[in-house]
Amino acid sequence: MTGSAQRPAALADAPVLVVGAGLIGTSIALALNRRGIEVHVEDVDPVHAAVAASRLGRIPPDLALATAEPVLVVVATPPDTLAAVISAALRDHPGAVVTDVGSVKLRPLAELAAAAERGSARPADLPRYVGSHPMAGSERSGPLASAADLFDGRTWAITPHGTSAPAAVSIVESLATACGAVAVQLAPDDHDLAVARVSHLPHLMAALTAGALRDAPPAHLALSGQGVRDVTRIAAGDPVLWRQIVNANSDALQALLGEVRRNVDELLSSLDAGDAGRVEAVLLAGAAGAAAIPGKHGGPPVQLVPVTVAIPDRPGALAQLFSEVGALGVNIEDVRIDHDPARAYGIVEIDVAAASGEQLAGSLRAGGWAAHR
Amino acid sequence: MTGSAQRPAALADAPVLVVGAGLIGTSIALALNRRGIEVHVEDVDPVHAAVAASRLGRIPPDLALATAEPVLVVVATPPDTLAAVISAALRDHPGAVVTDVGSVKLRPLAELAAAAERGSARPADLPRYVGSHPMAGSERSGPLASAADLFDGRTWAITPHGTSAPAAVSIVESLATACGAVAVQLAPDDHDLAVARVSHLPHLMAALTAGALRDAPPAHLALSGQGVRDVTRIAAGDPVLWRQIVNANSDALQALLGEVRRNVDELLSSLDAGDAGRVEAVLLAGAAGAAAIPGKHGGPPVQLVPVTVAIPDRPGALAQLFSEVGALGVNIEDVRIDHDPARAYGIVEIDVAAASGEQLAGSLRAGGWAAHR
Repeated sequence: MTGSAQRPAALADAPVLVVGAGLIGTSIALALNRRGIEVHVEDVDPVHAAVAASRLGRIPPDLALATAEPVLVVVATPPDTLAAVISAALRDHPGAVVTDVGSVKLRPLAELAAAAERGSARPADLPRYVGSHPMAGSERSGPLASAADLFDGRTWAITPHGTSAPAAVSIVESLATACGAVAVQLAPDDHDLAVARVSHLPHLMAALTAGALRDAPPAHLALSGQGVRDVTRIAAGDPVLWRQIVNANSDALQALLGEVRRNVDELLSSLDAGDAGRVEAVLLAGAAGAAAIPGKHGGPPVQLVPVTVAIPDRPGALAQLFSEVGALGVNIEDVRIDHDPARAYGIVEIDVAAASGEQLAGSLRAGGWAAHR
Repeated sequence: MTGSAQRPAALADAPVLVVGAGLIGTSIALALNRRGIEVHVEDVDPVHAAVAASRLGRIPPDLALATAEPVLVVVATPPDTLAAVISAALRDHPGAVVTDVGSVKLRPLAELAAAAERGSARPADLPRYVGSHPMAGSERSGPLASAADLFDGRTWAITPHGTSAPAAVSIVESLATACGAVAVQLAPDDHDLAVARVSHLPHLMAALTAGALRDAPPAHLALSGQGVRDVTRIAAGDPVLWRQIVNANSDALQALLGEVRRNVDELLSSLDAGDAGRVEAVLLAGAAGAAAIPGKHGGPPVQLVPVTVAIPDRPGALAQLFSEVGALGVNIEDVRIDHDPARAYGIVEIDVAAASGEQLAGSLRAGGWAAHR
């Protein structure tokens, strides 16, 4: 390892050091390992470090960094710790580019800048830091849940700050690519506004909706359909992790939540006054927002129609259905399974291109399925 | 048709008259037709009536009721019209049981009682009315979207009021059964509280969340993942229909929305104060609520784990995956397709019983799939 002194650094000049052996950190190590890139992992928790080592097929003492200096340090620790760990990495590895994989980018950047002003970090180190955020995860956490292909095909936001060095940005982009992801550049403030809207606010709204179900009688919960299940699914995520994310993106979220409060007030007074027009305005805004979410693969929203099929609840039934749909040459754009509360079969909704809907339903019916558009 | 005068009425003593040829009304007609039960459909909109007639394979003039009096009238008109149409049906068909299929049960009942007090309806008619609510629908509407099997396996709430005649309740239950649904009895006020929690509040929360996306820049929307898609999906429903539903269930919704506003206020002041503990309490309540929704088929929540698979975006790929999962003897409990914004393949999450997860992921990997737990 001669490294970055002689020529522009590249990821191939590894080793890469991953700090934090959780789901994301260990998955990054596995993804790089898969590409033959030398990677080391450290964690303050010796159990996490040992599990990560075993996932990488190593003996634990061999896992921590030996003599070679890393070309890249990836900080994958909990949100509240990011600034301190990034700062330590910049200090301890003066030749390395440093990135993190946190869900919020402005907060750690502001803390780094403040540390530099206080003199507890060197301003000259900051160009070596470039934030990033892989858009991948799981409701599970920890190194046992890690996987080399966690990032395959996912978007990985790269968020250079004002003084990030272009060569450092390039190395972090090559990290995303090496992990199988697609790198997309965004300014840190823009990133935080974006995830507040498309991730953090939806999480809080799901939690508020699900919270209203907590003490509901079973007879009420028994009327639950696919709608409420969809709205509340992400509320099952780790409350400690999400508390840190929400807190770190507090400014952007307060603005959005303030707007939600104004709309809730508007709804409450409209309902109280029996003013249907104002209620409808909120519903129309929601329909417009739902339509604004881009279609598959970032293209324009595709006109899809649902085809509904009743299927027996046994292994293989769904496989048989999908085989027949595939044999008809129809591409399935989305699938929902409605958990019927009373019977031992399920209702499956398959979204297909509008032009294929009637024909698919007809062909499935001809094949003996209870299917309809 | 000798009818109900000689012996206790039953659905087999048809004809059944459906008032309102929308999605639900026409689907009920098709479902009864499928069982060989004589059914007639009327609608104030001659186009809807004609479409319903053609779906039933009839010449339009033949569709309206001829001479025989109906044993059952099913009112399937928009929420705002229910009380007036139920009242007219009770008056015009003095031998018939009358039900409706509206999403809210107390409001029309109160309007009927008020009409009886005013003398514009006969109190003696009310025992022939029994409300009901099939838990089925679609983001589409109108008779073209109708299907004979729309109710197969669905729950159908039957909501007798204090003076509903037992024989009338029995006929409405047999309507649900004849349509392929599972009848469940609930008091009208209990039903309205239940659907406020598990359907109407989630709809409003989805609309509020989606409304925040309406004017978001495309670069922000491009970071949308499966979470925000799930939370906002139902916000695409018909705003006019939902305005009427929300308005009719105003009391129950105001109580729940008031609780939401208190929680939003709490979140806003907690974020402003940097009080992470209070933010976490809201998130914990949400996780508890999400866990309270019953598992498939009304049983206790089943411990499921997601297995994630990357698949190419072409017809047949999903079919091949499901065939292989089926061949492994693993039952798929739920499926989500993550619409990757940047690449021409999708990420599929398959929920399976916890005990099957690792083995399934391993077997799929051995079969060449990029799969992980």
